[in-house]
Amino acid sequence: MPRPLVGVDWGTSSLRVARIAVDGQALEARELPRGILTVPAGGFAAVLQAACAGWLDAPAPLVLMCGMVGSRQGWLEVPYARCPAGFEALVAGLAWPEPGRMAIVPGLRCENAGVPDVMRGEETKAFGVLRVLGLDQARVLMPGTHAKLATLADGRLQGFATCMTGEAYALLRQHSILARTLPAQDGPLHEPAFLRGLDIAHAGRGLLHAAFSARTLALFGQLDEAQGPSFLSGLLIGEELRERALQPAGPPLVLVGADALTRRYALALAHLGLPAQTAGQEATWCGLRAIADAWEAARP
Amino acid sequence: MPRPLVGVDWGTSSLRVARIAVDGQALEARELPRGILTVPAGGFAAVLQAACAGWLDAPAPLVLMCGMVGSRQGWLEVPYARCPAGFEALVAGLAWPEPGRMAIVPGLRCENAGVPDVMRGEETKAFGVLRVLGLDQARVLMPGTHAKLATLADGRLQGFATCMTGEAYALLRQHSILARTLPAQDGPLHEPAFLRGLDIAHAGRGLLHAAFSARTLALFGQLDEAQGPSFLSGLLIGEELRERALQPAGPPLVLVGADALTRRYALALAHLGLPAQTAGQEATWCGLRAIADAWEAARP
Repeated sequence: MPRPLVGVDWGTSSLRVARIAVDGQALEARELPRGILTVPAGGFAAVLQAACAGWLDAPAPLVLMCGMVGSRQGWLEVPYARCPAGFEALVAGLAWPEPGRMAIVPGLRCENAGVPDVMRGEETKAFGVLRVLGLDQARVLMPGTHAKLATLADGRLQGFATCMTGEAYALLRQHSILARTLPAQDGPLHEPAFLRGLDIAHAGRGLLHAAFSARTLALFGQLDEAQGPSFLSGLLIGEELRERALQPAGPPLVLVGADALTRRYALALAHLGLPAQTAGQEATWCGLRAIADAWEAARP
Repeated sequence: MPRPLVGVDWGTSSLRVARIAVDGQALEARELPRGILTVPAGGFAAVLQAACAGWLDAPAPLVLMCGMVGSRQGWLEVPYARCPAGFEALVAGLAWPEPGRMAIVPGLRCENAGVPDVMRGEETKAFGVLRVLGLDQARVLMPGTHAKLATLADGRLQGFATCMTGEAYALLRQHSILARTLPAQDGPLHEPAFLRGLDIAHAGRGLLHAAFSARTLALFGQLDEAQGPSFLSGLLIGEELRERALQPAGPPLVLVGADALTRRYALALAHLGLPAQTAGQEATWCGLRAIADAWEAARP
């Protein structure tokens, strides 16, 4: 019987922990607003102990962590493994805050046109997606502040690219001239406005010009104030999908992330004729299970 | 002898006034930090009187204004004239805060792929450029918060497009994750870093991905902190020029705007093999002179 596994998804703004079954399912999960930026230096072990109260007693589980906990601002800086990277590279790159007991999965780096790109946590989620959906290859799109699209094939994460979609939305929404014509709260998604923004950006040549449409349409009364955030959201997602130039042909396209955001991307992809499957945040637990299994299998 | 002319370039953040000679040159000019956003409702006449002290006595000059003074937040909202627009349309669209004495030049609107675009003030500057440089056609690139590229031919401003380049720079510079690795002050332009950012964005597919390079290059020590603002500036200008897809063939390309910014664009255009002429801010005075002459000529 394999050793018990506690999985930890420790990001910038939140901490998720779970007891993970042999099949990768969470037996029990908790989420806390204790992202790494809330943890004082030297305080990571204590925060983790508290989050996992009752789970760390004998027989001592393996605690496997992924995410920004492995960054310079985290518990222990873990060097990025290089793409293409499979389980071997992830296992070889594990860093151990507590040797034999607690490990952090390395993030990945790749190069796109000579420029480095990085991820921490998404590599685990992407491998988990393969296992959750029973795929041997996929294009995994992970929306968020810094959205990632990863390509997996031949047991490896071959490469990926980041788009600052969520962050650009927040900047334009809160700090730009466009914010002046937007309501204080986002409200529910207005689908026609979302798709209109999507189409304008997707058919355009870039964000610097396309974003100005949110201003001019409002100026001429062609965009209702309440619909502004939906339009802007469509604009940003449309720009990301334009930049990514996804084709219908290719490995299965899978969306994974928070529900509300994933639904918007699913709507956008369907509108653009790009069918996609979806997976939930539990993909991370499956990914940690798979990495733990690979680590066990590699032990002498 | 034509009536004396006082020109007013009244924007969001500054007010420039000049006594303009028959050849379009400024005989005397003043600049004040009295942009329209600093003027209380009903206060425009008084601010203008003070700025033009000594210039408005008999024989009463024509006072011709352009810029955001004609917007909803300005002195008098002037409807946009539609492109293509020549002097006839600008004269026909003049709005008169003081009939026969003080007029505001209408801004222009056009449509790009069904989406409206607008300018206020740049139409005057662009027509002025033709006169300053003795051209009968041109592509006039006006850098700034909302940069404009206008095409002029056959005596008309045929169309234009806005890119939110300056605003996007400010948002990324001040409010984004990139700001964390940038120094407090911009410092002098570091040309190699500027051109590196330019090349990355210009060869890329869009800003959401390209902007992340500022983070990853800094992360791997491939971009010096002090060079970050120059790199980011190159990135934004490179993205604008990528979106605009300017070709070397075509009407003369002219850069007009504030000196420091115009120099950056000139550097960028030369680097990309796009020769450009430059004109100074005085193009606005020439444009106001030309519009005043057209108005005089059209009087019964």
